[in-house]
Amino acid sequence: MAEILGHNYIGGARSAAGQDTQTSFDACTGEALPYRFSQATAAEVDAAAQAAAAAYGQFRSLPASRRAEFLEAIADEIDALDEDFVALVCRETALPAGRIQAERGRTSGQMRLFAKVLRRGDFYGARIDGALPERQPLPRPDVRQYNIGVGPVAVFGASNFPLAFSTAGGDTAAALAAGCPVVFKAHSGHMATAECVADAIIRAAEKTAMPAGVFNMIFGNGVGADLVKHPLIQAVGFTGSLKGGRALCDMAAARPQPIPVFAEMSSINPVLLLPTALQQRGSKIASELSASVVLGCGQFCTNPGLVIGLRSAEFSAFLQEFSAQMAAQPAQTMLNAGTLDSYRRGVDRLLAHPGIEHLAGARQTAGKAQPQLFQADVSLLLNGDELLQEEVFGPTTLVVEVTDKTELLAALQGLHGQLTATLIAEREDLAPFADVLALLEQKVGRVLFNGYPTGVEVCDAMVHGGPYPATSDSRGTSVGSLAINRFLRPVCYQNCPDQLLPQALQNANPLGIARLVDGETTRDPLAG
Amino acid sequence: MAEILGHNYIGGARSAAGQDTQTSFDACTGEALPYRFSQATAAEVDAAAQAAAAAYGQFRSLPASRRAEFLEAIADEIDALDEDFVALVCRETALPAGRIQAERGRTSGQMRLFAKVLRRGDFYGARIDGALPERQPLPRPDVRQYNIGVGPVAVFGASNFPLAFSTAGGDTAAALAAGCPVVFKAHSGHMATAECVADAIIRAAEKTAMPAGVFNMIFGNGVGADLVKHPLIQAVGFTGSLKGGRALCDMAAARPQPIPVFAEMSSINPVLLLPTALQQRGSKIASELSASVVLGCGQFCTNPGLVIGLRSAEFSAFLQEFSAQMAAQPAQTMLNAGTLDSYRRGVDRLLAHPGIEHLAGARQTAGKAQPQLFQADVSLLLNGDELLQEEVFGPTTLVVEVTDKTELLAALQGLHGQLTATLIAEREDLAPFADVLALLEQKVGRVLFNGYPTGVEVCDAMVHGGPYPATSDSRGTSVGSLAINRFLRPVCYQNCPDQLLPQALQNANPLGIARLVDGETTRDPLAG
Repeated sequence: MAEILGHNYIGGARSAAGQDTQTSFDACTGEALPYRFSQATAAEVDAAAQAAAAAYGQFRSLPASRRAEFLEAIADEIDALDEDFVALVCRETALPAGRIQAERGRTSGQMRLFAKVLRRGDFYGARIDGALPERQPLPRPDVRQYNIGVGPVAVFGASNFPLAFSTAGGDTAAALAAGCPVVFKAHSGHMATAECVADAIIRAAEKTAMPAGVFNMIFGNGVGADLVKHPLIQAVGFTGSLKGGRALCDMAAARPQPIPVFAEMSSINPVLLLPTALQQRGSKIASELSASVVLGCGQFCTNPGLVIGLRSAEFSAFLQEFSAQMAAQPAQTMLNAGTLDSYRRGVDRLLAHPGIEHLAGARQTAGKAQPQLFQADVSLLLNGDELLQEEVFGPTTLVVEVTDKTELLAALQGLHGQLTATLIAEREDLAPFADVLALLEQKVGRVLFNGYPTGVEVCDAMVHGGPYPATSDSRGTSVGSLAINRFLRPVCYQNCPDQLLPQALQNANPLGIARLVDGETTRDPLAG
Repeated sequence: MAEILGHNYIGGARSAAGQDTQTSFDACTGEALPYRFSQATAAEVDAAAQAAAAAYGQFRSLPASRRAEFLEAIADEIDALDEDFVALVCRETALPAGRIQAERGRTSGQMRLFAKVLRRGDFYGARIDGALPERQPLPRPDVRQYNIGVGPVAVFGASNFPLAFSTAGGDTAAALAAGCPVVFKAHSGHMATAECVADAIIRAAEKTAMPAGVFNMIFGNGVGADLVKHPLIQAVGFTGSLKGGRALCDMAAARPQPIPVFAEMSSINPVLLLPTALQQRGSKIASELSASVVLGCGQFCTNPGLVIGLRSAEFSAFLQEFSAQMAAQPAQTMLNAGTLDSYRRGVDRLLAHPGIEHLAGARQTAGKAQPQLFQADVSLLLNGDELLQEEVFGPTTLVVEVTDKTELLAALQGLHGQLTATLIAEREDLAPFADVLALLEQKVGRVLFNGYPTGVEVCDAMVHGGPYPATSDSRGTSVGSLAINRFLRPVCYQNCPDQLLPQALQNANPLGIARLVDGETTRDPLAG
């Protein structure tokens, strides 16, 4: 592992122009690690955006196969990050080595998925409407459309996934795949990790001869605001808190030229326990659900924060068992002191609420997060109590009992937008609760059956998104190959000579991609 | 033609709860027409949004073929609007009957195009990643994704296309196709027209048994703000001024739940005249270009407002001829008094600018718009003078001469986002100016060759969009079938029993649509 320098990454070079530094900490002990990170100056933020903009023209025009090679080279470099690196990430985040090893594989896997998308070519969205010179009253021109990258993208690293949603994470992968150079704002919680991953990206960029500013990284407090406001930045990817995400959205909307922000923010991920499922396997559900709530110390965007069941003897029995399971969960170290502090305050707000009962969980002590279980009266959901809709980031969840399906539908109607909703159901439950499914679909990005939301498969069909406040724009996803669409925009050519067209639109179809030609999808070349 | 009642349209019924009324005017004479339109009250705006939201659940869940029938029924009703109707539109807009007849056909054609898209099924964006139960270390779940409508959409009518960008225009068609009920805000410039078209939509909705709130319409000053702020509205479509569009964007971004606004606003549509083309057909270009500038009294979003050429004897000759052509263009009646007033002020600003020379055009008199031609020093473009970038809505254009290609590239670099850019070029011009094309692509939604931007073909491949301020979101188009994507969002199902899946995602592929299955596009059914 190379020495940690703590410099910003601008246009392929290192830069440490400012006087201020940031420190990285051991997440378990709280002690300062021996690294200092140079807070980017306003001039460095500007230089990073300029470098990205300078790279854009060349990078976006590369054949998609060249960008695929770059992503694959990044994947190889990430896979090659060794056990010293894993140990460093563990120190900065208090996450166990197994989780970091798995996340390393997930991160390189994401890069390879986008490389596949680039080679497949459907991201081009190629459409051709041929000329109709004889049409009356006016001839139809030849019109051809494809997608190009929107321009330089600002990406913010997330605290909870130091690899998969960070420096070389899903947003970076999607932006680079789209042909958009990236300026990455490293998360203060794992800056040494970020540096190692940035080095891996830079090595890959050099090996595959990418333009120098294709990837840039800045450190520092508050530099994100300058970045989002920079006129050359054309879109933003963010994973984090509602407060932080909304602040970026507001900044982006207030720019002279507003830009889109794809912020993945806050979700309580309701889990519905249907009657037959509870009857047949209530005790198994209690243990699976408690494992999902405390997985990774509850530090997942898809952590199940709301469990809803229908009043019945089985639900009461489940509740008892679930309480016992939650009470038995050990305390865990959180990502950092700030996260633990937020968790403690979130738990305190629930404890202080008169309509909410504390069912299980040890008193919060210093240093670690104690798993907690609460029960709220359904009236809080029906009356739109905001506290119930607030994500408490950590190993806690809240149970609500409804009297019947009518009340269930009313309670769900009041829910804000979510990343996920889960139905724990047996075959017999499905028909009577079909209208619940239709309603859930309007509220979420992903509906799960008999699983738990805390695993987000990286694939073509995944949607890790959903209506506000789960994300700032429900039309995007931040996991899976569709994520590339956030950073693409369509452009069309009218009566363009064939040799000047991008390859994706040329008559001969040299890329061999599927195209919508006069309303039919085909890979056939056109008569020239 | 039915009597014009002037009531708002809410949930399939008429409503005139308020005391205030709006008047429609004869665009040529300025005299009041004998119709009064009831200004929607706050309660009526709320009721319209509620009606749309109530219809959403049923409407979005209809088979796409049923929504296609609805759009086709609207198309038939619009085609059936008779010559009395055409005369009424002409009175309200001062547009000639031939133009209105053509626009009627364009409007019904748009509806039929979206019906085709619904039957084709690619709008579903269906993706399936099958389960891999044996995968190590964890099995892969079955994940299936498709698109659903975002919810009720607010659409604002445009002044310049009383049919094609208005009540049953492209935004309404795209939203309805996506499964989103519409609340339409009628433009004050053609309210009687809007009523006739709304009646046509309601007749079609009744004939095809659509839910009552599928289409709603409100009249009035300032009611648009209430509509955009309404919590049930999930997206906005708008065509109009930069000021108006930006105001809606700001409102939408400031909501507790921000929503996307697709505003098509301001574009000066640069036309580049390349040397060989000028040599070979300068005089033809001068007459074609002047015809494009004054087409429809210059009241097109794609009106060519900036003409750029390289210094040469041919360009000087072209300029002389173009000046003569522009001087010979007759005055025309504008859409309404407000538009004429804006035009007059825009022309006055150009006249008053010390860096801008007036080349041709009669002094502006009352009542009609006089076509005008100006020439600006290239330094204004190079130094980012804002006046040059401002759209003057009407029959005026501005010429800029550059000394060479280097200066041309620098001038283009400073241009704001545009709907279109046009290259007037011969084969010999293409190679030397290839880098100009690459730059233009970054600035616009559509690049044209040897045509004029004032015709926007309605087809699959059209992009009527572009970077800000041409639109508020360059990832959309407001003309062509891709426009439906603005009002769709992806949802995915994980391990969902086949019978509960939407038809688009079921194993048997009952809709017979193309789907991305495990990374390959296919229409084949899956083993169940």
